[in-house]
Amino acid sequence: MKQSITQPNGRLGVLLPGLGAVATTMIAGVVAIKKGLSKPVGSLTQMGSLRLGKPSDNNSPRIKDFVPLADLDDLVFGGWDVYSDNVYQAALQAKVLEPGLLNAVRAELETIVPMKAAFDKRYAKNLEGTNVKEADTRYELAQALIDDIEQFKATNGCSRLVMIWCGSTEIYFEESAVHASLASFEAGLRNNDPAIAPSMLYAYAALKCGVPFANGAPNLTVDIPALHELAYLTNTPIAGKDFKTGQTLMKTIVAPGLHARALGVTGWFSTNILGNRDGLVLDDPDNFKTKEVSKLSVLDEIFKPEENHELYGDMYHKVRINYYPPHGDNKESWDNIDIFGWLGYQMQIKINFLCRDSILAAPLVLDLALFMDLAKRAEMSGIQEWLSFYFKSPQTEEGQAPEHDIFKQLTKLENTLRFLMGEDLITPLGLEDFENLSQTV
Amino acid sequence: MKQSITQPNGRLGVLLPGLGAVATTMIAGVVAIKKGLSKPVGSLTQMGSLRLGKPSDNNSPRIKDFVPLADLDDLVFGGWDVYSDNVYQAALQAKVLEPGLLNAVRAELETIVPMKAAFDKRYAKNLEGTNVKEADTRYELAQALIDDIEQFKATNGCSRLVMIWCGSTEIYFEESAVHASLASFEAGLRNNDPAIAPSMLYAYAALKCGVPFANGAPNLTVDIPALHELAYLTNTPIAGKDFKTGQTLMKTIVAPGLHARALGVTGWFSTNILGNRDGLVLDDPDNFKTKEVSKLSVLDEIFKPEENHELYGDMYHKVRINYYPPHGDNKESWDNIDIFGWLGYQMQIKINFLCRDSILAAPLVLDLALFMDLAKRAEMSGIQEWLSFYFKSPQTEEGQAPEHDIFKQLTKLENTLRFLMGEDLITPLGLEDFENLSQTV
Amino acid sequence: MKQSITQPNGRLGVLLPGLGAVATTMIAGVVAIKKGLSKPVGSLTQMGSLRLGKPSDNNSPRIKDFVPLADLDDLVFGGWDVYSDNVYQAALQAKVLEPGLLNAVRAELETIVPMKAAFDKRYAKNLEGTNVKEADTRYELAQALIDDIEQFKATNGCSRLVMIWCGSTEIYFEESAVHASLASFEAGLRNNDPAIAPSMLYAYAALKCGVPFANGAPNLTVDIPALHELAYLTNTPIAGKDFKTGQTLMKTIVAPGLHARALGVTGWFSTNILGNRDGLVLDDPDNFKTKEVSKLSVLDEIFKPEENHELYGDMYHKVRINYYPPHGDNKESWDNIDIFGWLGYQMQIKINFLCRDSILAAPLVLDLALFMDLAKRAEMSGIQEWLSFYFKSPQTEEGQAPEHDIFKQLTKLENTLRFLMGEDLITPLGLEDFENLSQTV
Amino acid sequence: MKQSITQPNGRLGVLLPGLGAVATTMIAGVVAIKKGLSKPVGSLTQMGSLRLGKPSDNNSPRIKDFVPLADLDDLVFGGWDVYSDNVYQAALQAKVLEPGLLNAVRAELETIVPMKAAFDKRYAKNLEGTNVKEADTRYELAQALIDDIEQFKATNGCSRLVMIWCGSTEIYFEESAVHASLASFEAGLRNNDPAIAPSMLYAYAALKCGVPFANGAPNLTVDIPALHELAYLTNTPIAGKDFKTGQTLMKTIVAPGLHARALGVTGWFSTNILGNRDGLVLDDPDNFKTKEVSKLSVLDEIFKPEENHELYGDMYHKVRINYYPPHGDNKESWDNIDIFGWLGYQMQIKINFLCRDSILAAPLVLDLALFMDLAKRAEMSGIQEWLSFYFKSPQTEEGQAPEHDIFKQLTKLENTLRFLMGEDLITPLGLEDFENLSQTV
Repeated sequence: MKQSITQPNGRLGVLLPGLGAVATTMIAGVVAIKKGLSKPVGSLTQMGSLRLGKPSDNNSPRIKDFVPLADLDDLVFGGWDVYSDNVYQAALQAKVLEPGLLNAVRAELETIVPMKAAFDKRYAKNLEGTNVKEADTRYELAQALIDDIEQFKATNGCSRLVMIWCGSTEIYFEESAVHASLASFEAGLRNNDPAIAPSMLYAYAALKCGVPFANGAPNLTVDIPALHELAYLTNTPIAGKDFKTGQTLMKTIVAPGLHARALGVTGWFSTNILGNRDGLVLDDPDNFKTKEVSKLSVLDEIFKPEENHELYGDMYHKVRINYYPPHGDNKESWDNIDIFGWLGYQMQIKINFLCRDSILAAPLVLDLALFMDLAKRAEMSGIQEWLSFYFKSPQTEEGQAPEHDIFKQLTKLENTLRFLMGEDLITPLGLEDFENLSQTV
Repeated sequence: MKQSITQPNGRLGVLLPGLGAVATTMIAGVVAIKKGLSKPVGSLTQMGSLRLGKPSDNNSPRIKDFVPLADLDDLVFGGWDVYSDNVYQAALQAKVLEPGLLNAVRAELETIVPMKAAFDKRYAKNLEGTNVKEADTRYELAQALIDDIEQFKATNGCSRLVMIWCGSTEIYFEESAVHASLASFEAGLRNNDPAIAPSMLYAYAALKCGVPFANGAPNLTVDIPALHELAYLTNTPIAGKDFKTGQTLMKTIVAPGLHARALGVTGWFSTNILGNRDGLVLDDPDNFKTKEVSKLSVLDEIFKPEENHELYGDMYHKVRINYYPPHGDNKESWDNIDIFGWLGYQMQIKINFLCRDSILAAPLVLDLALFMDLAKRAEMSGIQEWLSFYFKSPQTEEGQAPEHDIFKQLTKLENTLRFLMGEDLITPLGLEDFENLSQTV
Repeated sequence: MKQSITQPNGRLGVLLPGLGAVATTMIAGVVAIKKGLSKPVGSLTQMGSLRLGKPSDNNSPRIKDFVPLADLDDLVFGGWDVYSDNVYQAALQAKVLEPGLLNAVRAELETIVPMKAAFDKRYAKNLEGTNVKEADTRYELAQALIDDIEQFKATNGCSRLVMIWCGSTEIYFEESAVHASLASFEAGLRNNDPAIAPSMLYAYAALKCGVPFANGAPNLTVDIPALHELAYLTNTPIAGKDFKTGQTLMKTIVAPGLHARALGVTGWFSTNILGNRDGLVLDDPDNFKTKEVSKLSVLDEIFKPEENHELYGDMYHKVRINYYPPHGDNKESWDNIDIFGWLGYQMQIKINFLCRDSILAAPLVLDLALFMDLAKRAEMSGIQEWLSFYFKSPQTEEGQAPEHDIFKQLTKLENTLRFLMGEDLITPLGLEDFENLSQTV
Repeated sequence: MKQSITQPNGRLGVLLPGLGAVATTMIAGVVAIKKGLSKPVGSLTQMGSLRLGKPSDNNSPRIKDFVPLADLDDLVFGGWDVYSDNVYQAALQAKVLEPGLLNAVRAELETIVPMKAAFDKRYAKNLEGTNVKEADTRYELAQALIDDIEQFKATNGCSRLVMIWCGSTEIYFEESAVHASLASFEAGLRNNDPAIAPSMLYAYAALKCGVPFANGAPNLTVDIPALHELAYLTNTPIAGKDFKTGQTLMKTIVAPGLHARALGVTGWFSTNILGNRDGLVLDDPDNFKTKEVSKLSVLDEIFKPEENHELYGDMYHKVRINYYPPHGDNKESWDNIDIFGWLGYQMQIKINFLCRDSILAAPLVLDLALFMDLAKRAEMSGIQEWLSFYFKSPQTEEGQAPEHDIFKQLTKLENTLRFLMGEDLITPLGLEDFENLSQTV
């Protein structure tokens, strides 16, 4: 049975805290795509299709033709940043897209000027912010963000909004008492509790306004009971965290393959070199710790060493990120995987991924904006576990293990769309040809 | 409802045409495992488990505990080879396993002496055979193989047999009239038609005896109507072809991941270096052609360029194999993958796999022996498409496209086992937590 | 004592058979450099310096300031090609340099239009030539080239000329009777002997005019007694062959290092992927053979297996080139080197070079043009062994072994320059500080 | 004129502070080589040859046949370690050599038991020592080491001794007042000044006894005026520091090659993974600092950015070492080198070296033992700059720049040997064939 989903009428405002390389690459791309200058490669919503019925039905519509998503023409963009550069200037600075392409969309990008950011240098020591809000307490900052959101909606005539965090990685810290309930959190805002990170202010503001919030960084942000509570209270979807790109993307592709074949792993060493602002922030050990925790988590869930002790019980997993200016946004990863097969014989896999950080992340921002808006219109509140596909550290309900296997994540995402549209779920079976057997079912 | 499956009582004879590196590594390994000296890593039947029910049920039995497979203690091994070395000598020669391990199983391996092979040098120019059957016609050769099979079964007191082709790659040729029906094929045997390859004689002999036959090489063998007909006539399972190891294994892991993310591919260059007997045979262009066709086929089905023309319509795919004696059985592959993302920006992935050919193939032989025997006992005749997981070029019924995505292959295999045992099939959905939604289903 | 060298007065005409990717990249670059738009990186004559006297003298002039070379401002370019595109069009087509840079030098490049080529399709089957000379015999073709040379010199007011072959690799063939003496060669020209390759016609024409000739391809060309004879007869320098770039460059850097440390080598596997016109030509096995012979030769001279049998006696060396259109001119090489050390323990080195074929070759063309002109003015006739530094297969006098070690090649080149200018040769010694010892010398 | 060199009569004692992976691999190897079980691959003294006279003389004797080195049969080994394992046990523990080989030399290795070490945990926090000397002051420790040396010499009937430091990397610290003169140093010993590191005590003891000392670690040790003074006072050779193996070896091979071709470098990223005791010690940032300084120094001297600013002025060089237990002694390095060529176009080189740390280091220890003994007998006191070939950070006299280019280092080493034996030094010239020119010299 098809679920009831409100139609995507009117304009959808996409609010982005952090108008750096990722966000500007996404915005410039959407403008270029709307002008027919380029293609939304890497975006599942725009380029992907999903199969309905049996293989022999040959029915695989594009996702954007199957579920009622907002149209690219209805998107309007806004955001906050600690630098005051408009999106054209920031995109030039980021050196991700070539100047020729940026020139072709310059007029549209120059109109998008960042609102002043809620910033706290303790959470990102390597950043120097100038375009920042002044306020006495976190409560005032949160109120200022709420004002920004409402004003943006009114000014741009939006019927709906979503917010996708595209800002920096904050320093590592763990959940504490102030995060435990909405009450304690709001008290903390008023007390200006330093344990409330800037990113939490954005999430709080969004959820208060009923605006879906997705978290593209490994920060704690909405991974706290206080904001879960708020999300359910305001019937708002949340999702996170940490866009799955580059090395971790490859890891959640390759690891399921090794596991499928019951090949053992003794070690997995992953290193990265990158030279963009993200790399600069992560050059600080406190910020790297946050990212490291996120990146390290993916293998355990896939290999389940507690169940497969003989194969994965002694695996040594190490992740490193190195700031290396010569590469700019062209992040490069190198992995060495020590595996063993039949009778314990050792083998090695080396993967060298010459990727582009923002090129991989940008379409995820677009997809999340469109899917979070869909979720809101389908009245799916709280944690959107079916969007795990997009994240290094998928949010789950308390006590549940996250799914990291990208193929299982994709199946879940697709089946969720089929379910919403009242289509049969796909259950592959290799017995199509055994007619006698089938009759006995 | 659970299917009716005969119990695996008595001994299972495993007949292997080609007692080279792969077969001897498998046999030596099984003996070592039975003695507790080693582990069957890489074998899904022995090390793998599959989930039953919901994740929260925490019910993931080992496959060998879930379906009624033959026990390793009930296996007896035999085979044919163009060289007369016993399995101990052949394993030493192959230089895959270390002498210490081989010594520990020497007595058992020395008792396995190859029967004389049905060989035709035109099909493998780089091989020199001495341990070969003399006969006037292919018909006589086939009869001699049937005699071998029956005698092996009687001598070793087997209740059942399976045959897994572990021999060389034959030269490339295409299906012709003699392969079109069982009648024309049997006429061809009598006429000694040169278009009937040696591997076809083994398959014919097995099927005549009702012995399941799996094809580990890219040879045509059972991919012809004549032998399909015979398989159904004698209610015998067949499966193939070309063990999926090394580079192609990685390819069918990585390609689905790129496709999942809607990343485009402009080129995929794959090269291999290996120095074992397989490499020597493939150094002949006619034999390489057979392998090349098999290896090239995998990407098209995964990427479906006809459906995803913007992403994969211009993909250039090239595969090379180089004979390189210094590496022996330690096959090494190197892949360069040219991909593109958001707005068409180019990226590259390089994968260097330092693998061991026979270590990866050996557990596949074991799994296929056990699953083909299961299929026979479950009365599943003809092409076993659910075993696609093991093959570079999965056999399908006429007119159906093979599945190459290893994750879909695994799901099919697991669901087939669940189906046979009367368990619910698994259909992942990302909506477990949306209780309201669930109620509307 | 300083040698007597004529000063480089007047214009130097640089004639290039083959106005493809390499030649156009060089010409466009020189124009851009003269305009101050770019730097002649990779050119020893322009960017390199050499030390004079003791290290403590701190006297390392730029090479161009040390020896009397032609100035870039005095160069004029011309050439022949089977396509009629002018240099601007050909450079655009080659996709080596970005359109922006080419636009900045467009006017200069458009004035350089290729003369009609002396072409024979049998020597390059994958090329289709349209801009070719019609003639009844090779003799007539050679005369037409001589006319071209003289006319170019007159038209452009050149005081001197040099010719650098930048054309394709021809098919493999070996020296035969027609190449044995100038007399037999000139008879062959008249008889239109098919064993005289097109490249030989250019070399003959150049040498007849006393114009130095350097061979950038692995073709036989001037490696024949007939043309050696002509070179000495007309007091003309010759040099070759096959520009040392990319993989072979790396090989002659790394191999001397392994040899220096007495590390053994069991195997060296080299593969290349490239998609430019050079790659297309080499996709034909007959043309590849010529290149293969050139590329394979380098290791033996460096490792001297006959002297170091324990270390290099069993080395297996294999080189492959694969046409791979997605990469265009961005040639990529991958090498696997199997080495062994103390007690025979095995190690491996993998080198992946993401290079640009024409970017590496272009400065070699410039250097050779300037050094060949210098040699002519210094009255150094015949084979210029001191320019081995630039070639995969250095020409030597009959019976002498070529030097492949790039560091010894460089020392020879530098010492030759020092010798010409009457400076002390450099003989490094590690004993500067042992004053007592020095006194005893 | 040949230098006067005392003949190597009698036994040579080789004393090794640090009987870990490197030292035990060297000792076991020498024993195995003497038994004819293996070859001294990687040892220049044993396997290398050097050319005398002109190439056409074909006179390239083995180095050991050319200069009067101690014979392997005359070597006796001893040493100190913080663990009390004998050399057989320590070698087993190190997991570098296979048990079969170790068994074959077990008897010889078991007789070598480490003397108690002079240890200070502050200099290597990750090590736990039990086999350590107890003493009230560094002075007493130094005296105890002198006693050890004298007793070893007497007990083993040695005519000469050498000492090669094979111990761990100590924490980073810089030269201070106590190191400034022999007087201040000896005062510091008595005051038990903590700025005197354990390795300095060994060096002091050796030099006091006139025993040559070479430093295989990046520690400060003999790089201080106090010990230079002592070396000259006792006419004793010293050399260092930090054995050049693995990644740095490759770096000093490849960098001269890039420089030779005037190719620019924007970045060089080097990472290492290793799991031996050395890796464990270097996992402490203070110890890594010492190694990092040593490893970073090599590129600047080769590229001379101050002279070649356009090519190397903006080079970013980063070195990382990661403790990764799965690899044990099989150190693996991965380098990414960002280079640029003609007109500034970018290219990349990736080098992946699967090396074995101790296999590469062991022959260096042997060579240094033999060459340091030669230097002593040739009366060459103080810093042996001609042995730079073996070190990451070659010692030089005050104010001189070290030579890092391995090819120049080798030329210096060879020319020093030629000089000692009264042979002509080699000065390669590429003009052998220009007879007229030669006559004008």
